[in-house]
Amino acid sequence: MVQGKIAVVGAGVIGLSVAWRAMNSGWRTVVVDPQPCSGASWVAGGMLAPVTEAWPGEEPLLELGEASLRAWPEFAAELGDVGLRTQGTVVAAFDAADAAQLTILADHLASIGRDVGRLTGPEIRRLEPAMSTSVRSGLSVPGDLAVDNRKLLEVLRSKAEFIHQPARAVGNGVVELDNSTVDCDVVVIAAGAWSRHLHPALNSLIRPVKGEILRLKPGWGAVPLGRTIRALVESRPVYLVPRENGEVVLGATQYEAGYDTQVMVCGVRDLLADAERVVPGISEYVLVESAAGIRASSQDNLPVIDWLEPGILVASGHHRNGLLLAPITADAVLALLNGNPVPEAAAAARLESR
Amino acid sequence: MVQGKIAVVGAGVIGLSVAWRAMNSGWRTVVVDPQPCSGASWVAGGMLAPVTEAWPGEEPLLELGEASLRAWPEFAAELGDVGLRTQGTVVAAFDAADAAQLTILADHLASIGRDVGRLTGPEIRRLEPAMSTSVRSGLSVPGDLAVDNRKLLEVLRSKAEFIHQPARAVGNGVVELDNSTVDCDVVVIAAGAWSRHLHPALNSLIRPVKGEILRLKPGWGAVPLGRTIRALVESRPVYLVPRENGEVVLGATQYEAGYDTQVMVCGVRDLLADAERVVPGISEYVLVESAAGIRASSQDNLPVIDWLEPGILVASGHHRNGLLLAPITADAVLALLNGNPVPEAAAAARLESR
Repeated sequence: MVQGKIAVVGAGVIGLSVAWRAMNSGWRTVVVDPQPCSGASWVAGGMLAPVTEAWPGEEPLLELGEASLRAWPEFAAELGDVGLRTQGTVVAAFDAADAAQLTILADHLASIGRDVGRLTGPEIRRLEPAMSTSVRSGLSVPGDLAVDNRKLLEVLRSKAEFIHQPARAVGNGVVELDNSTVDCDVVVIAAGAWSRHLHPALNSLIRPVKGEILRLKPGWGAVPLGRTIRALVESRPVYLVPRENGEVVLGATQYEAGYDTQVMVCGVRDLLADAERVVPGISEYVLVESAAGIRASSQDNLPVIDWLEPGILVASGHHRNGLLLAPITADAVLALLNGNPVPEAAAAARLESR
Repeated sequence: MVQGKIAVVGAGVIGLSVAWRAMNSGWRTVVVDPQPCSGASWVAGGMLAPVTEAWPGEEPLLELGEASLRAWPEFAAELGDVGLRTQGTVVAAFDAADAAQLTILADHLASIGRDVGRLTGPEIRRLEPAMSTSVRSGLSVPGDLAVDNRKLLEVLRSKAEFIHQPARAVGNGVVELDNSTVDCDVVVIAAGAWSRHLHPALNSLIRPVKGEILRLKPGWGAVPLGRTIRALVESRPVYLVPRENGEVVLGATQYEAGYDTQVMVCGVRDLLADAERVVPGISEYVLVESAAGIRASSQDNLPVIDWLEPGILVASGHHRNGLLLAPITADAVLALLNGNPVPEAAAAARLESR
């Protein structure tokens, strides 16, 4: 069955997941990106942790994230070794205000039927011995996953065909490059924060939010981490995501600075200071890399997955959740391409739900 | 006049300066280094600041440094554009103990006839407006220089011939490589902290001292620096060396960790925190690079420049002063090679002075 041809604009985790699934479903696919795997998905930590992102009023995002989390093990298994980790998440609160925030989160989750484990300081240190004795309380979410985002992207990259050029504009069945065009049946805009320049409907829906991360590895004698650690330190969120080889991704700052991807001294300073207050032994880690990426934030933190007009689909605005939402986003895009109903949880990501 | 052949082991600033000067003096030279320009000289800040390194009891080092500083303008002029800056140094004291240290230094310098300018907080901020209002007092040394160490190394590298292999041992007129030898008339050991493995006489004289630096560039709206800034912050020394293009080298940690050149979280944290206390606007700089190098420290902070035995010279142990001492070291080595007396200030660097 030949389904026609799609051109995916953007080789981050969303674009590549869509391209891979579309190819498997019989579509000819090409991915347009001047530098595949160089954006927010490459810089990300790889947390697959919808519950600890929950907040009152954002129930549709929680349901979308949970549905995608359930799809992750099969998604990963089909791709091979993508460094999927199943040790779960612990969330730590540093001061009294941080602890109060976690109580709001835990109460909210309980009220919608998602009980999470509430931990005292000693209990959280029993789970993660590297945690500071200053940590007051925490939560345990054993069902969370984490993925090695760079392994994942390399696997997805190996399955795609690329045009290494920037997309300057898209139309019905066409992607315009600098000096040529790509003709296709459907264009999928999956260009993250750059998507807003490709269609007027996205211009006010999506905005760039800068994030800096540090990649660390244990120095001589440093205590390894088991679980993903999230924390609130004087209201600033910080996370530490361990990899199988002991490396840790420490992230992430969040601020609006256009499309600037320079790593600022203030960002590095805050990440290191906050991480050290939660995990003092992080000072004995080696700094391997610092990097910044641009998230595609949306007004309601939900992605936008829908037809924009005939021949043009969008899958963007995934903010901090691109890795988590890749499986359900690919499923939803495939449903739209094939004329089927989207997964129930993905209905909230359609334009008509805004 | 053919002088014979020398093999210089080590392509840092000392080895390359010696090779260049020897070549100009009629010697055939070859430099043995698996990775030229990758060690401490590459990582360094490029301060040429002997006075602010002075300390009671280290007068011979001060005289050596001052003699080399005087030789620097001509040395640089012969090489071309090496980013020599002549704006001088300001030294800042953060707390009362730091201010007391600077008073000891200034009194000492006055007692040996080197008066330096003593500055109040407001005076130091008039010289460098980026300086924190918390800085209590300081010193001004207008005669200090700074060099762009990487420009310098590139120029010196372009003048040398290399064997890109590690030296495994040296003997009278021979350097042993993995599977071959380099025959010559004289070997010059200029391998920095690795020199100690090349001759038994150096084993206890020289030891490795790790140093980490950060390279920064001004972000949008960041205040540029004019002079080299040195500071004591709660007894920890820190320096900020500006380049012509606005970049700043922030250094340097000092600790003994063998030959490890990994950049530790604790080092980065301390450098950023200390720099920010002296120059708060450093937080608005961009982190461009982090790196570590291994200094060759000696027991008395003086380098070792002498014959070790017939056919083997050493020029190593320059600790924090490799860039500063390159001209006088090259002069001294050339004098030894040619059978002339070494410059007076370099006599203290001979073995017999130990």
